[in-house]
Amino acid sequence: GALGGLGVALGLWRRQTALAAAREDEEEERELRQRFMAPPVSGLRELRRRRRELRSRMELLIMETQAEVCRALAALDPGASFAVDTWERKEGGGGISCVLQDGEVFEKAGVNVSVVSGLLSEEAARQMRSRGKSLKAKDGKLPFCAMGVSSVIHPKNPHVPTMHFNYRYFEIEEADGTKQWWFGGGTDLTPTYLNEEDAIHFHKTLKEACDKHDLKLYPKYKKWCDDYFYIKHRGERRGIGGIFFDDVDSPSKEEVFQFVKSCAKAVVPCYVPIVKKHRHDSFTPEEKLWQQLRRGRYVEFNLIYDRGTKFGLLTPGSRIESILMSLPLTARWEYMHTPPESSKEAEILEVLRNPKDWVH
Amino acid sequence: GALGGLGVALGLWRRQTALAAAREDEEEERELRQRFMAPPVSGLRELRRRRRELRSRMELLIMETQAEVCRALAALDPGASFAVDTWERKEGGGGISCVLQDGEVFEKAGVNVSVVSGLLSEEAARQMRSRGKSLKAKDGKLPFCAMGVSSVIHPKNPHVPTMHFNYRYFEIEEADGTKQWWFGGGTDLTPTYLNEEDAIHFHKTLKEACDKHDLKLYPKYKKWCDDYFYIKHRGERRGIGGIFFDDVDSPSKEEVFQFVKSCAKAVVPCYVPIVKKHRHDSFTPEEKLWQQLRRGRYVEFNLIYDRGTKFGLLTPGSRIESILMSLPLTARWEYMHTPPESSKEAEILEVLRNPKDWVH
Repeated sequence: GALGGLGVALGLWRRQTALAAAREDEEEERELRQRFMAPPVSGLRELRRRRRELRSRMELLIMETQAEVCRALAALDPGASFAVDTWERKEGGGGISCVLQDGEVFEKAGVNVSVVSGLLSEEAARQMRSRGKSLKAKDGKLPFCAMGVSSVIHPKNPHVPTMHFNYRYFEIEEADGTKQWWFGGGTDLTPTYLNEEDAIHFHKTLKEACDKHDLKLYPKYKKWCDDYFYIKHRGERRGIGGIFFDDVDSPSKEEVFQFVKSCAKAVVPCYVPIVKKHRHDSFTPEEKLWQQLRRGRYVEFNLIYDRGTKFGLLTPGSRIESILMSLPLTARWEYMHTPPESSKEAEILEVLRNPKDWVH
Repeated sequence: GALGGLGVALGLWRRQTALAAAREDEEEERELRQRFMAPPVSGLRELRRRRRELRSRMELLIMETQAEVCRALAALDPGASFAVDTWERKEGGGGISCVLQDGEVFEKAGVNVSVVSGLLSEEAARQMRSRGKSLKAKDGKLPFCAMGVSSVIHPKNPHVPTMHFNYRYFEIEEADGTKQWWFGGGTDLTPTYLNEEDAIHFHKTLKEACDKHDLKLYPKYKKWCDDYFYIKHRGERRGIGGIFFDDVDSPSKEEVFQFVKSCAKAVVPCYVPIVKKHRHDSFTPEEKLWQQLRRGRYVEFNLIYDRGTKFGLLTPGSRIESILMSLPLTARWEYMHTPPESSKEAEILEVLRNPKDWVH
């Protein structure tokens, strides 16, 4: 009768729900494979459930950026491919490291995503903010969440520049429940030899991404980049800059996120055309040697000054191999190496000592 | 008459004095050439005038050590020779850097003397002492004098270990005229592959130098060395140790100086026999690669943890090229490199993770 009919209907409904769930799983799998290098740290379902939260949108953005960049680079270096490592942090969260090593075009290319959370000491929290604002903790500990995508690409050919980018988001909860949040990031170029056309293309692409949001951003973040990537003991910048910003929490969460998204989307158009243009350039052993010496300077900056590296090395449970992925495969230090006047080596040094404006 | 005779006598005396001074100059020149790599920073006459002061005796010791080590190394690498640079520090003092680069046996060998003086801020003075004792300054500034010999030897052959030593002396004058003084130093070995016989020889030679002064010194300074050369983020020591001490100001200035002298005299007997034994050893490309990866770790320690490097980079007017002379000619970083179990590479890693006692 009626009850039997209800039972059949219920059974049908159950089967359909189970089928729908299986289909959803399958779709999710397909989507993951297509969109990302690995399943997101927070899980796709969890990200969907809280899809309106900025944390979730940012995690999807950094996952997409990782996949976009890895695919664009792999396409430039046929035969080479990215090894994908997913790792968990005991204290909370984890990450996905994608590394291509010893390719034809790239000597070492790493694109790393990390999404970590847990408790910070007041001191550690203060150090995370470039403005060093102090935060009020309950029982001395602050719940935090930090996520970001960061990447360093070291090509083999000395005429293809090294590129670095990083986009990150932080949230810290104070004792009274107030949530502090801020973004940081940047994209910058480190050529072995100066190519003005490339420098202009790189900076122009970044400027366009910034200008969509506020005309004041590019000049401000271009200068910040030159100031940040300064190897003080050498009196040189690490490279010819780009943009850099940290501890940005205005005008609004949504607006800063949209700006960060534009920057992240600009990475491939900034860099890929430069790699394409020069990857088959011929070079001399002397040019390779100069590249190796500049790689030495890259190591000096990253190990002595870089706040991200320092913070990473000091964070308990951080993954050393992912942090030091930024170091080149090979580097060189010669005592008292000085390039001859008006050489191509002296030309780039001049720009590293006195940064130029590439676009107006 | 009498006056004329006096005039003649005076003339004669003047000529003799002038002749004696010229002879003295000549002798000094000869002595300098024989004993030292370059004239001492404080000048030989000044050092003679205040020959009883410990500062002078220490400056002569570091100059002698520099010359002894350079000559011993040059004799091992025929065809190569040390380039000698003398430099002055605007703020007071200067130094002598001796560097051999790209020899047959040595990839990069540097032996550096520096003798600097001037005024320190209270903060800088506190940082110089490992115990962080605070010192009372007049008008916020403390007159200081710091001198030392420091050296890093990177050989080409992966079967010849890298060696480092440094012996230094500090004096700081407090507001009330009290002079604080202390010594620091050490000698340590960084092999690419473990050779137990070499490790024992190295440690035994150091122990003998220490034991002449106090049987407690070797065990104490051996442990200090293992603790100091610790690459925290890797959980590894830089090498198989040796001795290290800092901020030592007892039992007495004279006794510590005699101990430091014994250590400085032990550098050549510690290291030269090991170089002689292995400089013609054959090696594979894989062994060279492992050496390069270990050189990367050497760079990590020196740029991230070494107090001497940090202090040098922060000191205004310091000579960067002499400080960073300690970096190898070439280094390498591979993502996630792990040597296979029970390989020779795993054998040295085990000792770097768990330091051993080599002599009892």
